[in-house]
This record gives sequence, C-alpha cells and structure tokens, in this order.
Amino acid sequence: MSKGSAVIWLTGLSGSGKTSIAHGVEHALKKQGVHSYVLDGDNVRQGLCRDLGFSDEDREENIRRIGELARLFVDAGLVVITAFISPFRRDRDRARALFGEGEFFEIFLKCDLATCEERDPKGLYKKARAGEIEDFTGVSSPYEEPLEPELTLDTAELSLEESVERVMGFLDEARALEY
Amino acid sequence: MSKGSAVIWLTGLSGSGKTSIAHGVEHALKKQGVHSYVLDGDNVRQGLCRDLGFSDEDREENIRRIGELARLFVDAGLVVITAFISPFRRDRDRARALFGEGEFFEIFLKCDLATCEERDPKGLYKKARAGEIEDFTGVSSPYEEPLEPELTLDTAELSLEESVERVMGFLDEARALEY
Repeated sequence: MSKGSAVIWLTGLSGSGKTSIAHGVEHALKKQGVHSYVLDGDNVRQGLCRDLGFSDEDREENIRRIGELARLFVDAGLVVITAFISPFRRDRDRARALFGEGEFFEIFLKCDLATCEERDPKGLYKKARAGEIEDFTGVSSPYEEPLEPELTLDTAELSLEESVERVMGFLDEARALEY
Repeated sequence: MSKGSAVIWLTGLSGSGKTSIAHGVEHALKKQGVHSYVLDGDNVRQGLCRDLGFSDEDREENIRRIGELARLFVDAGLVVITAFISPFRRDRDRARALFGEGEFFEIFLKCDLATCEERDPKGLYKKARAGEIEDFTGVSSPYEEPLEPELTLDTAELSLEESVERVMGFLDEARALEY
C-alpha cells in the first residue's frame, strides 16, 4: 500500500470482529511504514460522543461525527480505520459522501447473528436479551447490510489473521489501480 | 522539538493572529520532520461542529468537541495546533484536563480589541458592530484572558515570523525539560 491517506470503514454486528480486525490492520500498516489510527467505541464513545446514546437519532449523529472525524484524519494524511456497528445504510452513505474517489473503503464483516451472539465478547447480547440494553443492533434494533461494500469478509469462517490478510490484499490492489 | 505529540492551544480574539500563527508553526514543525495538524474554524466549524451556533452553550460544546478531537490526534501521535477564540476560561481548562503533564500548551495571543478590529481580516467586527452577528467575542460576548497560559505573545507588536519563532523556541525548551 502506498502512503495515500484513506478511511477503512468496518461495519458489522457486535461480535463480528471489527475492533480486532481494525487493530490487526493498524499493526500490518505500521509494518509498512503507514501511519494509521483506529477510531472505535473506546476512544470515541467515551469522549467526543459521550453526550450521545443509542436511539436512532443519536446513532445517526454518532456516525455523522465519526465521518467528520475520519475526514480530518484523512486530511492530516493518515489512514483511519473505523470500527463501529454503523447499522444504517443512509448514515454510512453520508460518511462516504465526505470523501473522494479511492478514499473510502466500506468493508462488511458478515457474520450471522447466532455466531456473534455465541461469541458475545462483551456480554452485551446477554444483557440485551435480558432487556437490560435497549435498541441493541440485531436484537432490538435493525442492521442494514451494505449493498455495495468495497469488500465483504465472512468473519464467521475466516480467522483474524485471514481477515487482516484479505484487507491488506484489498488495499494493495486498490492502491495499485490508482497509479 | 522531539517527536512527542502535544496540543498547542492558541486562544485570543478574532484578528489576533491564531490561524496565521497556527499554519506558521505547522510549517516550521514540518521542516523538523514533526507531523502536525491545524484544527481551525475552516475544517471544524464547517464539519464536525456545523450543528453548533455561537450561543454560550454551543460555544461550550464546540470547545468540548475540539478538546476531544485534539485528544484523539495526540493519541495518534501528532502535534495538533488549535486555532479557536475559545473565550471561556472554564472551557479551556476542561480541554486541558483531558491531557497529561507536558501535553497541553495554552498560548495566549494578546492583542487589544482596537488593533484586532482595525485588522478585521474577515470583516466580522464590522458585521458585529452593525448588529449582523450576535454574540461576537469582544463586542457582544466576553473574552476571558488566560490566568496562567504557558506562553503569552503580544501579537499587536510581534510580526508573524517573530510569533512563530517564539512558539518554536518555547516548544524546544518545553521538550528539553522532558528529557
């Protein structure tokens, strides 16, 4: 991959592997000397977006801000990897609209609900099923699959390493086309 | 200056030289191989904060977001230079509280209102005096001078080059103390 800045927008259910893949890609890019940064719930939801909840309206504003945030990082010359469920097509498309050709790569982490729920890394599905969390994507709030993502990864089948390799391969190819 | 990340928080009236000095410092840092980025009205007010106006409440939220934004850039390893009036002491102190020792440098661009108004680079004072802009800092909204800024620059007297030199000198010294 060249040093061109871009946003790698990961989308998928909770438990589909967004955060792990994001950090795996960050690590692989670092080895190539590419400066990248991961935006995820830990650093965004606790800070910039801590005034927002999980209603449809707040989710929309959350994704709007993340899109604008990614725009600034790309402008600063970084590759930014976002790891948010980002369940609504319209919100993802709005984020995409902030970027130019070859700057925004939507990657769909396709993993069936049953598998995600079995993994339940943060115990959130359990809480959602118990009614302790409202508006939980996949349980009590919808997830709209991307219609034309740049890449789809079947993360129910692929290992973390395989997923990261596929993203890196995709980026190499995308960049090769540009030059 | 070393490659340590930090935020250089410029504060002062409209016309005090924030944007010019910010870009001058960015340029000087680039020459040293330090990756920096300027956050200013052009890239933040039009994007991330375009839902906000200029009421006290919106100004507070604006500065809160800029502080969180700066936190992310510092976390990504950059030196971030913010160029916002940021008129309220409490809001600046809240931003400062997001950072560790030696990460946040508040620089007060001290320039009397008459000089700023004479410069009026964007014609905003004229509009404010004509009542076309409400809540304009220095005219119809207060500016609270920093009590203990890391550095004060008398930008009514100093040239742009001199101001940039002083910031760079200050940073060299601040960094030297750390190692």
